[in-house]
Amino acid sequence: MSGNPGLFIPGPTNMPMAVQRAMTVALEDQRSPDFPKLTLPLFQDLKKVFKTETGQAFMFPGSGTGGWESVITNTLSPGDKVVIAVFGQFSHLWADLCQRHGLDVDIIETEWGVGARPEEYAKRLEADKDKTIKAVLVCHNETATGVSSDIGAIRKVMDDLDHPALLMVDGVSSIASIDFRMDEWGVDCAVSGSQKGFMLPTGLAIVAVSQKALAAYEEAKLPRCFFDFGDMIKLNADGYFPYTPATTLFHGLRASLDILFEEGLENVYARHHRLAQAVRRGVHAWGLELCAKEPKWYSDTVSAIVVPKTIDARDVISHAFKNYQLSLGTGLTKVMGRVFRIGHLGSLNELMVLQALAGSEMALRDAGYQVELGSGVAAAQSYLLQDAAKPMMPKVTSVAAA
Amino acid sequence: MSGNPGLFIPGPTNMPMAVQRAMTVALEDQRSPDFPKLTLPLFQDLKKVFKTETGQAFMFPGSGTGGWESVITNTLSPGDKVVIAVFGQFSHLWADLCQRHGLDVDIIETEWGVGARPEEYAKRLEADKDKTIKAVLVCHNETATGVSSDIGAIRKVMDDLDHPALLMVDGVSSIASIDFRMDEWGVDCAVSGSQKGFMLPTGLAIVAVSQKALAAYEEAKLPRCFFDFGDMIKLNADGYFPYTPATTLFHGLRASLDILFEEGLENVYARHHRLAQAVRRGVHAWGLELCAKEPKWYSDTVSAIVVPKTIDARDVISHAFKNYQLSLGTGLTKVMGRVFRIGHLGSLNELMVLQALAGSEMALRDAGYQVELGSGVAAAQSYLLQDAAKPMMPKVTSVAAA
Amino acid sequence: MSGNPGLFIPGPTNMPMAVQRAMTVALEDQRSPDFPKLTLPLFQDLKKVFKTETGQAFMFPGSGTGGWESVITNTLSPGDKVVIAVFGQFSHLWADLCQRHGLDVDIIETEWGVGARPEEYAKRLEADKDKTIKAVLVCHNETATGVSSDIGAIRKVMDDLDHPALLMVDGVSSIASIDFRMDEWGVDCAVSGSQKGFMLPTGLAIVAVSQKALAAYEEAKLPRCFFDFGDMIKLNADGYFPYTPATTLFHGLRASLDILFEEGLENVYARHHRLAQAVRRGVHAWGLELCAKEPKWYSDTVSAIVVPKTIDARDVISHAFKNYQLSLGTGLTKVMGRVFRIGHLGSLNELMVLQALAGSEMALRDAGYQVELGSGVAAAQSYLLQDAAKPMMPKVTSVAAA
Amino acid sequence: MSGNPGLFIPGPTNMPMAVQRAMTVALEDQRSPDFPKLTLPLFQDLKKVFKTETGQAFMFPGSGTGGWESVITNTLSPGDKVVIAVFGQFSHLWADLCQRHGLDVDIIETEWGVGARPEEYAKRLEADKDKTIKAVLVCHNETATGVSSDIGAIRKVMDDLDHPALLMVDGVSSIASIDFRMDEWGVDCAVSGSQKGFMLPTGLAIVAVSQKALAAYEEAKLPRCFFDFGDMIKLNADGYFPYTPATTLFHGLRASLDILFEEGLENVYARHHRLAQAVRRGVHAWGLELCAKEPKWYSDTVSAIVVPKTIDARDVISHAFKNYQLSLGTGLTKVMGRVFRIGHLGSLNELMVLQALAGSEMALRDAGYQVELGSGVAAAQSYLLQDAAKPMMPKVTSVAAA
Repeated sequence: MSGNPGLFIPGPTNMPMAVQRAMTVALEDQRSPDFPKLTLPLFQDLKKVFKTETGQAFMFPGSGTGGWESVITNTLSPGDKVVIAVFGQFSHLWADLCQRHGLDVDIIETEWGVGARPEEYAKRLEADKDKTIKAVLVCHNETATGVSSDIGAIRKVMDDLDHPALLMVDGVSSIASIDFRMDEWGVDCAVSGSQKGFMLPTGLAIVAVSQKALAAYEEAKLPRCFFDFGDMIKLNADGYFPYTPATTLFHGLRASLDILFEEGLENVYARHHRLAQAVRRGVHAWGLELCAKEPKWYSDTVSAIVVPKTIDARDVISHAFKNYQLSLGTGLTKVMGRVFRIGHLGSLNELMVLQALAGSEMALRDAGYQVELGSGVAAAQSYLLQDAAKPMMPKVTSVAAA
Repeated sequence: MSGNPGLFIPGPTNMPMAVQRAMTVALEDQRSPDFPKLTLPLFQDLKKVFKTETGQAFMFPGSGTGGWESVITNTLSPGDKVVIAVFGQFSHLWADLCQRHGLDVDIIETEWGVGARPEEYAKRLEADKDKTIKAVLVCHNETATGVSSDIGAIRKVMDDLDHPALLMVDGVSSIASIDFRMDEWGVDCAVSGSQKGFMLPTGLAIVAVSQKALAAYEEAKLPRCFFDFGDMIKLNADGYFPYTPATTLFHGLRASLDILFEEGLENVYARHHRLAQAVRRGVHAWGLELCAKEPKWYSDTVSAIVVPKTIDARDVISHAFKNYQLSLGTGLTKVMGRVFRIGHLGSLNELMVLQALAGSEMALRDAGYQVELGSGVAAAQSYLLQDAAKPMMPKVTSVAAA
Repeated sequence: MSGNPGLFIPGPTNMPMAVQRAMTVALEDQRSPDFPKLTLPLFQDLKKVFKTETGQAFMFPGSGTGGWESVITNTLSPGDKVVIAVFGQFSHLWADLCQRHGLDVDIIETEWGVGARPEEYAKRLEADKDKTIKAVLVCHNETATGVSSDIGAIRKVMDDLDHPALLMVDGVSSIASIDFRMDEWGVDCAVSGSQKGFMLPTGLAIVAVSQKALAAYEEAKLPRCFFDFGDMIKLNADGYFPYTPATTLFHGLRASLDILFEEGLENVYARHHRLAQAVRRGVHAWGLELCAKEPKWYSDTVSAIVVPKTIDARDVISHAFKNYQLSLGTGLTKVMGRVFRIGHLGSLNELMVLQALAGSEMALRDAGYQVELGSGVAAAQSYLLQDAAKPMMPKVTSVAAA
Repeated sequence: MSGNPGLFIPGPTNMPMAVQRAMTVALEDQRSPDFPKLTLPLFQDLKKVFKTETGQAFMFPGSGTGGWESVITNTLSPGDKVVIAVFGQFSHLWADLCQRHGLDVDIIETEWGVGARPEEYAKRLEADKDKTIKAVLVCHNETATGVSSDIGAIRKVMDDLDHPALLMVDGVSSIASIDFRMDEWGVDCAVSGSQKGFMLPTGLAIVAVSQKALAAYEEAKLPRCFFDFGDMIKLNADGYFPYTPATTLFHGLRASLDILFEEGLENVYARHHRLAQAVRRGVHAWGLELCAKEPKWYSDTVSAIVVPKTIDARDVISHAFKNYQLSLGTGLTKVMGRVFRIGHLGSLNELMVLQALAGSEMALRDAGYQVELGSGVAAAQSYLLQDAAKPMMPKVTSVAAA
């Protein structure tokens, strides 16, 4: 088919040409004296993205799932108790990963469409008089439902109860796109991946952990080797790695970080918020609702859109792909057929968002929903136009910050 | 700025990833025994695109302007009389090039917005009782005004008058996008370039000439060397070149030809027509007119859009570029400030066209024209939707073909 | 510095331009209907490289270390007994990984410079009257010492004793370069990585397992999730993955497999043997010895060269890198300072090998060893010349095959 | 075939990865407001490479032949008298180009193997009492024979005779590799191309001209349009072009210039001299002679090597290509079969040169000459080793500079 495909899934995202360019490199010796000139600044700059000064960043060959596994296996022991709210496919999968590793997982079953409720975490932690809960896990941005949670609020709950558990956050589809404040929120383990806000091919599990998490590493008994922090720490100190790392992606990450810093992280967040708002205006103009129940849960990186009962969301996605080369995100498990998702994160601008809306309108029509053509585009345009002069600040994501 | 820029000028066009991939090659020896395996099929396949069986194709390092120069200098002598209709900046430049080479150029001054009128050519040729006119030059697609002309009709005029002049056609922004029939229309020299329908970087002047033109070469006295047909013919026969050719672009051209043939040339034309129609529906929905005066002149590769008198088209273009990373074509010379152009040729699909329309709407607003947001997008969507099942045939471009 | 660097470490190897070209792709939706067209043939073709018809291939984001971990965690349970010969850094690391996962590891301590001795394995297995040994681990090609072992011979030992243990082989630096016969040798788990014989960037752990290993999976209790076979099997069946895979590398792997099959696997092995022989002729012409004690241990993918006692091998490596842009492999742990390594695997030809030898000669001189300049090059040339007409068959690597 | 091909023709040269990376760009609007940010510095930086402060640089889509044509047609009129020494295929071709453009060409027929003799130019200029000679043409580096000429000495001849002719220099295979001093030597027109010292794909004719040449432009009557200086000057002033330029190559040129300046032009020249010396040591060690008769004619960018009478140089080239993937330059016309050429310019280092020598030795053997294997490599190594600490200055190319 002719023309550029439109990629609007919530990751992998659209890779900037500058990233592709940066990865046009020969393979190289990961033990060369020059190699640390590439790698050492990456570690430093990743910390800026996670907003941590005292933490430590890791880059494993892998994906976000590998990142989840790394933080669990390096800080916990078999049978350790953890608590996690499950309100979508990805929070579910992380909980499942914990169970597979023999942890005692207390799941806060939560309706899909809302986020992690601080009050529910509070109940569990309050009940845990002996402080046996070793880790509190939260999915910052549930990619399946387009729901963001307030990490700062959960930290506040923990602080108020003076609970010593580690705070672990899945930031795979938030970090580098939505404001994330590791030190301020007291996050002990933050997990991300290369193919979302970092705008790279899949292949790096990017993780940052606090000194408290590193202290927990000393006691943690879950078996690990590939994802072991200790080996990494020892060799990363000089810019090297315990086994061959994904050098090509490091060059891409260099470009990605340069792009992020050139725009400025706060501007990156503001842009994501603005473009997400435009998408939401479009969705509402179509007469449709988001899977996210309330504005406070709205995700600035992905919108899960509930289709009318008369149609199947899979048809929307299928028509979009076959007729218009438009990749939309599918509804996963519980919401399969009921929602389609527009990913709006990473390297993105106004016209790309309008393209996604225009294409979705076409696909909705093809799938049998008589959406008014151009209505979503017009609503988004209207928002983006009036908004042109005054880039809005991103959603305040923390009560602590309010 | 974040996100992919939108390139909607009438060339260079959007390069397909497959072309970029194909050009990821090392430099090579243009005299190696393997080299002809790459080059010989290119010559054969170019002839298919020009629709000539008896003609000969050339690839010079250069651009369309170089292609113009090549056909003039290889077939004509100083003082030779040629006739050319000028109805836009590019037909003007070709006429100018002829004058600079010392030809006696009879210009058919034509209103910008209409195309080459066969009846005007007929007048000149009829008056030329001694058949002193050596060449009839026609711009197939005037990129400045978005006007296509009927080459077959001009051939018919020449045939009816039994005029022996060479028929030379500028197909820079038509060939590989709009139906072009070199043999059927009796075109003697056809000029194209790499950066339009061929979807490549600028750098190749792609030319095809008839046996009649090659016979004229023997008598032609205009000085030439870089663009000399004779040197090329001698070495091209075995797949080689008289001087170092642009080998990287040859690899890209291989990919480009494969893409064109996989889609099928007739489907390529139909797609261009369909997407051009969508753009035109959008323009009319905005309440604006094309520079092209009548539907029969409408170009399927570029639309020049006349802005309301209250605004300056340069502002539209400037806002599009600065606010939305959208590159639109400017109005050249006579129509500067009055028109902006949307290029819709090459590697293009529905959503790209909708993106261009959506962005133009935003830029029109920014420039002060209160276009109804989404109106052009909706009109184009509506056309593309109803049209989905039945790809329309391209505009019939020749009376001979009717 | 000017010019192309010379990469002669035993992986990452030199990436062919065709692989780089193939990876010039946009990011894409790993859940698209088209995706299996890319992935399903990869699984089939990987099996050809492993030479298994009944086994199953996996591609994890990761590296060889991840591959080791995957086969261990998916087939064994805590406390399971395994036996492994350690005769270099990589066999050591694999044993270490087993220990970290709580296995009971019986290490056959073996001199660095020889390979896995079938008779030593025989002793352990014979003594294991209760057949409590769950897995026999062998490093096919010890990258640290340039030593290849005879996997078929170890299988024969197991068969002769009718021992039911799984046979697990580290083929990271052998598979796709040195003959490997998974089915014939009864290998249950074979581990490779993308950055060696597959000529790709690091980032894929490529693993193949037998049906017997898959049966063991059902009972295996070691925790796992990222590397879980079960999730992969379920989704791979249709060409999909349980989490976002490294799609860009898949495109590169497609090119890599095409290259391997076009040359023919047997020719690939013969070429590796021939080029390795040339390197060894060069080394002997220098008056130096290999770390590998006997010809039967010689590796066709990497040569570890023992330097004279008067110099430090690290100086050779350092001079090679700084003065000549030549990356040589360092001596690891026990042999640090005593050996440097020339990797001769992957995309390689005669002149590249001569370049490595020429550069090593210069670096040896710079490091203080008065090697006769050109002597190694001449010896290798002489071998390659006489050898030109009759490509030698690769070393017979199995008694079973004799 | 496996492995990287060896490219040792005198252009196209080996493209650095940084150049390939830089050309990984989308196509773009050559009329965008951002475009001059790319182009204006290129013009300035090219002047540094030509070593002119008062001259003007041009970049045409084309090749070196186009560059020749541009300087001729923009400064001369039909029938103008020019004088040129012909001592190889490229000086011959330039003379031929002049003749085809109707110039009165006084050819100084010179033996192949020597360069432009100042004394012969002196004779012609001295005899030209009426100063009717409009231009003195010199080929700085004759690529066919590997001969460099002393441009400064020819300028001195002109100055001594106070001759007003323009001094035009073909620097296609010298500029950016061998010292070139446009202002100091009073060169009026200097011609180069992208695919030699600039390490880019073919596609740019790079030209610099003096103010005197620009004054001559005003009177020059040779027809021209594609290569017209005037159009370029007008639009280049603001960073734009009269027709679509080769934007992708501009990005490559940016990288190329950065590479040249980072190394430093004087270091670039010294490196070329040093590597050329190494090649020459190798050739002499083989018992062979260069086509260049005396050391003062030796070219630092290409060596044409005379083979023994018993063999055909074409066999050497053919064996090198087929057996070893080594591209060597062929002997052109007069010296076909008698010489093969090693190009040693552009992105090049010690090991690449040794690789070329090693491969040539193999190919010489295959062609029937019993060269001592390794002898050329050893001689070159020996030179490069002793030379390591003290990079030699390049050959003094001008008496004026002495």
